[in-house]
Amino acid sequence: MTQDSIKIFCPATIANISCGFDVLGLALSAVGDEMVIKKVPIPGLRITKIIGLDLPKEVENNVAGVAGLAFMEASTYKGGFEIEIYKKIKAGSGIGSSAASAAGAVWGMNALLDAPFSKRELVQFAMAGEKLASGVAHADNVAPAIYGGFTLVRSTDPLDIIPIHAPKELYASIIHPHIEIKTSDSRKILKTSISLADGIKQWGNVGALVAGLFQEDYDLIGRSLVDHIVEPIRSILIPGFDEVKQEALNAGALGCGISGSGPSIFALSKGLATATRVTQAMSNVFVKMDLSYDPYVSEINTKGIQIIS
Amino acid sequence: MTQDSIKIFCPATIANISCGFDVLGLALSAVGDEMVIKKVPIPGLRITKIIGLDLPKEVENNVAGVAGLAFMEASTYKGGFEIEIYKKIKAGSGIGSSAASAAGAVWGMNALLDAPFSKRELVQFAMAGEKLASGVAHADNVAPAIYGGFTLVRSTDPLDIIPIHAPKELYASIIHPHIEIKTSDSRKILKTSISLADGIKQWGNVGALVAGLFQEDYDLIGRSLVDHIVEPIRSILIPGFDEVKQEALNAGALGCGISGSGPSIFALSKGLATATRVTQAMSNVFVKMDLSYDPYVSEINTKGIQIIS
Repeated sequence: MTQDSIKIFCPATIANISCGFDVLGLALSAVGDEMVIKKVPIPGLRITKIIGLDLPKEVENNVAGVAGLAFMEASTYKGGFEIEIYKKIKAGSGIGSSAASAAGAVWGMNALLDAPFSKRELVQFAMAGEKLASGVAHADNVAPAIYGGFTLVRSTDPLDIIPIHAPKELYASIIHPHIEIKTSDSRKILKTSISLADGIKQWGNVGALVAGLFQEDYDLIGRSLVDHIVEPIRSILIPGFDEVKQEALNAGALGCGISGSGPSIFALSKGLATATRVTQAMSNVFVKMDLSYDPYVSEINTKGIQIIS
Repeated sequence: MTQDSIKIFCPATIANISCGFDVLGLALSAVGDEMVIKKVPIPGLRITKIIGLDLPKEVENNVAGVAGLAFMEASTYKGGFEIEIYKKIKAGSGIGSSAASAAGAVWGMNALLDAPFSKRELVQFAMAGEKLASGVAHADNVAPAIYGGFTLVRSTDPLDIIPIHAPKELYASIIHPHIEIKTSDSRKILKTSISLADGIKQWGNVGALVAGLFQEDYDLIGRSLVDHIVEPIRSILIPGFDEVKQEALNAGALGCGISGSGPSIFALSKGLATATRVTQAMSNVFVKMDLSYDPYVSEINTKGIQIIS
């Protein structure tokens, strides 16, 4: 790496994939932020520009800043970094807006220093940014942003991330309805205990989903995209959720659920044509409700964060 | 199939593989029952011989009988069957004694009729036998007995069984201490609710274990063989459990847990030499406690029930 400045693409991500609450995530190609990371002689970390969202530039109050500080604390590098953030992922959309910034900062800094840290270590640094954003140092968005594809966070302490094979014909549909749900609020409404019977169903589905992904068994993926625990509670916060889900399934989606802690709703489909039809069917529900929204159709981004220039 | 009589091997099985409570099972090669199934002109089902255990011969009170009746009710076959059972798997051992009989009966009858039923249907019939044995029509022992290898029971209603790849160098150690725990009793001590936090750990481990099996990643298999839900409760019923587990891990086992509802304890290891050493280390604990036991070392039986002659 001879460059002192890189521009990178930082993908949006879907966490809590149906049965995979708090463990399964995937990275998208069709939507993401851009960031410019510069290596500079003056020590310290500065956020010099933020376009697209009104976010604090003070590093201690910015998720990219906090993640970057965690990186620099562990690094032997004596110089400094400057960060420009071009936000395309809306805050509070449920597709990993804070994760993209946190992961992008540390990934970019690592690339400029010839990659002294592993992907796993970068996730660990980025989790500091997630903690600032939501109060919880979760890894289920930053892991797929950094690794690409599907990731399973087996454990956060110690951090154990397992890349899961992404079938080639799998596409994601996302609808982001313009309503606000705070991650911290949507955590509060969850029950702290669940029935053993529901737990058994959930881990049966997680095991089956992982098997379906490795075997590219789309029917099995569809049968396993079921959430007995969180969706029944959180979906109450998303107007039109049940109808959107039903329309997605009617249009041929393998499964449909809440992206992250919402309000975005995702569906997975086999093939781009079906995913496009599914996105349209989901959109129609919000059109009918006169609720504005952003629709996306995306392949699974198997590379994660990448250098643009 | 021109034979009117077959002798079959019906493998012992490990259910509830650590994190996979109620969903994951595997079949063994080193221990199992033998059964002779005969096609006869006289309609009906008769159990003509039971060697090795004192079990009822009346078909309605015998797990093989009840499973066989479920088979015959669904079949168009007008003749009858006679069954001889040579029990090698001790009752109440926790390695699928009732499942071997139930699965063997229906597998053998199906083979003699040129296989009108699928493996999935055979599991469904065999589950009737399991219901007689334990009060619950569970599939986590009969599924691996019939499919072989590792199986994941995603759902019992509707029944959905997913074969999971068995890594070639994986071996099982089993120690059956001669104490009695009834399946129904060991179900009663389980709590009906669990914490969401423990649930998340459990489904993270199930997903990771399935990934480890497909990728033949033995370290990952080891890290995932953890049970946060059931083992802490049920292990109290098995004297010496903690020490046996520690000795198994010290001897190189990837993981160790309760087989089925106990009292058998299983360990999984990479390679036959390690598995043999692990079995010895586990045995030593019961020797020291002056508790009699049966030890087994086994490859994973990827074929399931097979015709011997």
